Amino acid sequence: MIIFECDYTEGAHPEILKKMEETNYVQTPGYGVDCYCESAREKIRKACGCETADVHFLVGGTQANFTVISSILRPFQGVIAAESGHINVHETGAVEGTGHKVLTLPSEDGKITAAQVRRMYEEHWDDVTHEHMVQPGMVYISHPTENGTLYSKEELKELYETCRERDLPLFLDGARLGYGIASEASTLTLRDIASLTDVFYIGGTKVGALFGEAVVIVDPALKKDFRYMIKHNGGMLAKGRLLGIQFDTLFTDDLYYRVAEHADSLAMRLKKAFQEKGYGLRYDSYTNQQFPVLPNDHMEKLAKDYSFSFWEAVDKEHTAVRFCTSWATKEEAVLQLIEDIQNL
Amino acid sequence: MIIFECDYTEGAHPEILKKMEETNYVQTPGYGVDCYCESAREKIRKACGCETADVHFLVGGTQANFTVISSILRPFQGVIAAESGHINVHETGAVEGTGHKVLTLPSEDGKITAAQVRRMYEEHWDDVTHEHMVQPGMVYISHPTENGTLYSKEELKELYETCRERDLPLFLDGARLGYGIASEASTLTLRDIASLTDVFYIGGTKVGALFGEAVVIVDPALKKDFRYMIKHNGGMLAKGRLLGIQFDTLFTDDLYYRVAEHADSLAMRLKKAFQEKGYGLRYDSYTNQQFPVLPNDHMEKLAKDYSFSFWEAVDKEHTAVRFCTSWATKEEAVLQLIEDIQNL
Amino acid sequence: MIIFECDYTEGAHPEILKKMEETNYVQTPGYGVDCYCESAREKIRKACGCETADVHFLVGGTQANFTVISSILRPFQGVIAAESGHINVHETGAVEGTGHKVLTLPSEDGKITAAQVRRMYEEHWDDVTHEHMVQPGMVYISHPTENGTLYSKEELKELYETCRERDLPLFLDGARLGYGIASEASTLTLRDIASLTDVFYIGGTKVGALFGEAVVIVDPALKKDFRYMIKHNGGMLAKGRLLGIQFDTLFTDDLYYRVAEHADSLAMRLKKAFQEKGYGLRYDSYTNQQFPVLPNDHMEKLAKDYSFSFWEAVDKEHTAVRFCTSWATKEEAVLQLIEDIQNL
Amino acid sequence: MIIFECDYTEGAHPEILKKMEETNYVQTPGYGVDCYCESAREKIRKACGCETADVHFLVGGTQANFTVISSILRPFQGVIAAESGHINVHETGAVEGTGHKVLTLPSEDGKITAAQVRRMYEEHWDDVTHEHMVQPGMVYISHPTENGTLYSKEELKELYETCRERDLPLFLDGARLGYGIASEASTLTLRDIASLTDVFYIGGTKVGALFGEAVVIVDPALKKDFRYMIKHNGGMLAKGRLLGIQFDTLFTDDLYYRVAEHADSLAMRLKKAFQEKGYGLRYDSYTNQQFPVLPNDHMEKLAKDYSFSFWEAVDKEHTAVRFCTSWATKEEAVLQLIEDIQNL
Repeated sequence: MIIFECDYTEGAHPEILKKMEETNYVQTPGYGVDCYCESAREKIRKACGCETADVHFLVGGTQANFTVISSILRPFQGVIAAESGHINVHETGAVEGTGHKVLTLPSEDGKITAAQVRRMYEEHWDDVTHEHMVQPGMVYISHPTENGTLYSKEELKELYETCRERDLPLFLDGARLGYGIASEASTLTLRDIASLTDVFYIGGTKVGALFGEAVVIVDPALKKDFRYMIKHNGGMLAKGRLLGIQFDTLFTDDLYYRVAEHADSLAMRLKKAFQEKGYGLRYDSYTNQQFPVLPNDHMEKLAKDYSFSFWEAVDKEHTAVRFCTSWATKEEAVLQLIEDIQNL
Repeated sequence: MIIFECDYTEGAHPEILKKMEETNYVQTPGYGVDCYCESAREKIRKACGCETADVHFLVGGTQANFTVISSILRPFQGVIAAESGHINVHETGAVEGTGHKVLTLPSEDGKITAAQVRRMYEEHWDDVTHEHMVQPGMVYISHPTENGTLYSKEELKELYETCRERDLPLFLDGARLGYGIASEASTLTLRDIASLTDVFYIGGTKVGALFGEAVVIVDPALKKDFRYMIKHNGGMLAKGRLLGIQFDTLFTDDLYYRVAEHADSLAMRLKKAFQEKGYGLRYDSYTNQQFPVLPNDHMEKLAKDYSFSFWEAVDKEHTAVRFCTSWATKEEAVLQLIEDIQNL
Repeated sequence: MIIFECDYTEGAHPEILKKMEETNYVQTPGYGVDCYCESAREKIRKACGCETADVHFLVGGTQANFTVISSILRPFQGVIAAESGHINVHETGAVEGTGHKVLTLPSEDGKITAAQVRRMYEEHWDDVTHEHMVQPGMVYISHPTENGTLYSKEELKELYETCRERDLPLFLDGARLGYGIASEASTLTLRDIASLTDVFYIGGTKVGALFGEAVVIVDPALKKDFRYMIKHNGGMLAKGRLLGIQFDTLFTDDLYYRVAEHADSLAMRLKKAFQEKGYGLRYDSYTNQQFPVLPNDHMEKLAKDYSFSFWEAVDKEHTAVRFCTSWATKEEAVLQLIEDIQNL
Repeated sequence: MIIFECDYTEGAHPEILKKMEETNYVQTPGYGVDCYCESAREKIRKACGCETADVHFLVGGTQANFTVISSILRPFQGVIAAESGHINVHETGAVEGTGHKVLTLPSEDGKITAAQVRRMYEEHWDDVTHEHMVQPGMVYISHPTENGTLYSKEELKELYETCRERDLPLFLDGARLGYGIASEASTLTLRDIASLTDVFYIGGTKVGALFGEAVVIVDPALKKDFRYMIKHNGGMLAKGRLLGIQFDTLFTDDLYYRVAEHADSLAMRLKKAFQEKGYGLRYDSYTNQQFPVLPNDHMEKLAKDYSFSFWEAVDKEHTAVRFCTSWATKEEAVLQLIEDIQNL
């Protein structure tokens, strides 16, 4: 059985493990103020083209999301997000747990538009009873989205300008950011993202690390006392060095992008195979998640040798499923899967 | 200018004020353990046909809603409600403020069905990643709904049974409960409601009192330490007697129902006038809120002498608006409005 | 049995009831934007000598406290208060319910000093692990304190300056503010308080109103969107006019001070009687709460005709108790009590 | 410079790293349902002598503490703890962040007694205004305490029985549990702890792991839906296997105890050296943390070659400091330190 179910089925890229072993006996202070964290921060700032950014390392995505969001919002404010946004559906109400409503916008492909944000904002402030409603306080997007789709540079720019004008900080969840930047369809670099958002994070867990997300705070107004927020929310790792070592390794010799390119290119070969077989695609993804719509009998046959995720029933005879590739996906596994698809 | 904008534009029914004056110098202990509260509780229990119910008096509806909801749910649970439910749209995120998500169901008329609840429940538990999603923990309905509509006895029974089977406490927001029970279209008595919900409240603010909502806890499992919940949420009135006096008066000689009948019957006359004029109705309400769809020029003319609420634009030339009646609405005001409608 | 147990055993000053009756049929908009609220706001601003202050009316003290506090603090901050402060002991964890720690300072008489605040602040920031501790974010005092004691003008000034220098908003809980200002020992006027705090409230519930606290926000930085905070916390009264009417009446012809003076002067007569009888006083109060230390047999005899509050056992044979006077306390009741004390 | 500042200055015991490398390419499902977690759970249950316990793996101590505590308490309840308890002083208000007050008991050595718990409980329920105060809902202790001290079997038994009788779940924070069990002064085994608490955790971060705490829920009433709690609080590691692998390794061939014994025995040699030098000890610790009271000039000399933690100023000329040993502390480093102490 080969697992294509998600992008966190193995440990970590071997260079990371190697680095952890090499440094194992070095003594460092705790809580992220060690030399490895410092070095990783410096490399990330450089990669972002933003020497003044604050960089913090958190353990996981849910934690990063609610820590950032609750750091920004006042008690009566909510965060605008796509209905399908990770914070809205798959974090067990962690954002609400910090007291804030997720204000949802409908979305076909996981993306939201500047026009949608403008409309929600205006509707709020136009309403004479606006004080009886949650005030929009910031905007959350994920890139790539939960559906593997990507914002274009133009789209992100319009969103960012819309947000700026309305004093709504724009937060980009980059749990799979590498796969977005490395995609053949990408029009956004890491520098673009750093200049078109107020705060974002660079996902490690799903892009080669054991765990870890690097939160990059670009907007100076959002920086104050963020370390308190991390500790308050149980996210300050005692051996913070572990996060530093991982991101330092990922941002050395472009490992982060190499890992992502590997996964993306295998995913595109899979996509091509699905298309050549005549399958529809639930979302037109150019990143490491692919969403073919399979005839149910084909799906069952494939399920004997491969594990993948159920996404949704499309009709009585077809099901959308998700295949993920990652740093650890082997070319031969993908080739074998393609062959098996062709033979269905 | 005559105000039909809402049902809380005046003070209180004169019998309430009279009673407050008569008792003004009586010395009582604070916090709702006085003789007036006791008497009101006894009368409410009798009216509900439920001698074992716990009855607590809170000041307002938002407070009653989030206090009840946060008393029932565990941190990772949410409350199922109609998208248009008051807790979802008009309480500035008070429920989320206590850490809980509102799990919304689409609704055309403000009501939700047992089938919808079953589906949401099943979808949750069927999902292999259910622990990553907010767990449905209870159901919230309002009766009458925010659209003036009513649950039938059959509908409420099916909802209640659905909830019982799934261990989901059913909570009925009765901010306008009197107008529902007194409606000519009602198939539910107060006793029915007490036997087909786990907890509900009898609205005073909008039905003749200065303020106050009587929370009735029927399910013994939900009773424990509710007074702590009230105090914890800032809802324990020092001079609790004020709530006791008001509800004691409302539940003496059926004042609560008389007040509601007065408003309902005036609203039905208004409704008839709208219909005879050929206006559509946004919702088919048999309670004190009426939602005619007015041609915009008619709306503007009426707005010169009457104040009413904007509801929504229906098309370029028509607008749905809301007219409310209350205990204080004068017959002559309604007659004059009807005449003005006829003359448009 | 005559009740001296607390200062909220009766209804309201008759002028308030009269005004509520007179205005009962006037139609007003809800939620505190009516003419009575406006008029009351204007009078309070004048009385405070601060034309730019924001004035909001809330229903009760616990609600006012946690709404103000959670409006000011960021998630990882706490509020500095005396160990005996109302928010720390008698609000069922309402402040913690909003996510914030109460950082307590020891206090003999209910007051805290500027030196204590400075020390706590310095200890926090001096500690190398300060991010692991709750950050002091504001200071809460009550005036009069829960023990009936008063800050002098010098003390308040030093506190305020200490707070300003450290960017710690100073919040004064004035649940019994009238009794403080009207005290023969007072060195603080309402204007002084408005110029030596950032936000405070003028208590109505315990000083002649049915209920209600007028929150006065002096510091412009604390004003933004406070109405959202009120609604979010369930404190926005639908018939907000009721609060406006009460405070408008209290701030007409100095009723608020007359009510307080009446109570204070009766309390001072009681105090004198206790002292002449040779009883110790647990706190040296010049306001409407008096705390004599009674021999237990005397206490038991008095308890047959009077109700008062147990405060604490002082030794095996003596108990500190609390007697309160209020707007409603009758001179003859006090005279009779004094006579009974003398005859013990 | 040799660091004795804390017990998390290095990476992890080499056997853990080795195991992580060996398993790096094995594909497993995420979120803690993999074979390594299952194996670790089984070993921990066996070591606890409790086949029915639920075992969950969390990343850090603060996270474990507030997740367990907020899982147990209702909104108006608080957790009883020593004033010096980690949750009260060094978690940036994480417990309050979940809405709950920490109800503190004074403590000289970090321990609390059954008698203190009984008194606080009785005082709460005896008070007629108990609904105005936070209700005690559970008890938190740490073992070893933050001061390195240990509960005896008799003390823990009395605490547990006291808690049981009052329906207060007893929660033991075992961030340094290994060092307690392995101590020469210990009268408690892991089995004892599992039978004398309701829920506890076995600390990994400070006892040889990279990170991780194993929460053991013994009381069936506390087990329900704890995985939702973990996810809701951002504590569910995507690559949960990392926690399983670590605890599986630690509970193979008694590695956990061997690691702890190593640190404890070195600490006892240090303790002896301090005592022989004539230094006082701030706490009489038999575990890996030692708290000598050093003359300030000696302290400064030692600080040139060793790093250790400032604890508190004892008088003008003496300072209490903390030295920690760990799995990674080298015997030669301790011997050198002892020699340097002798030569002072």
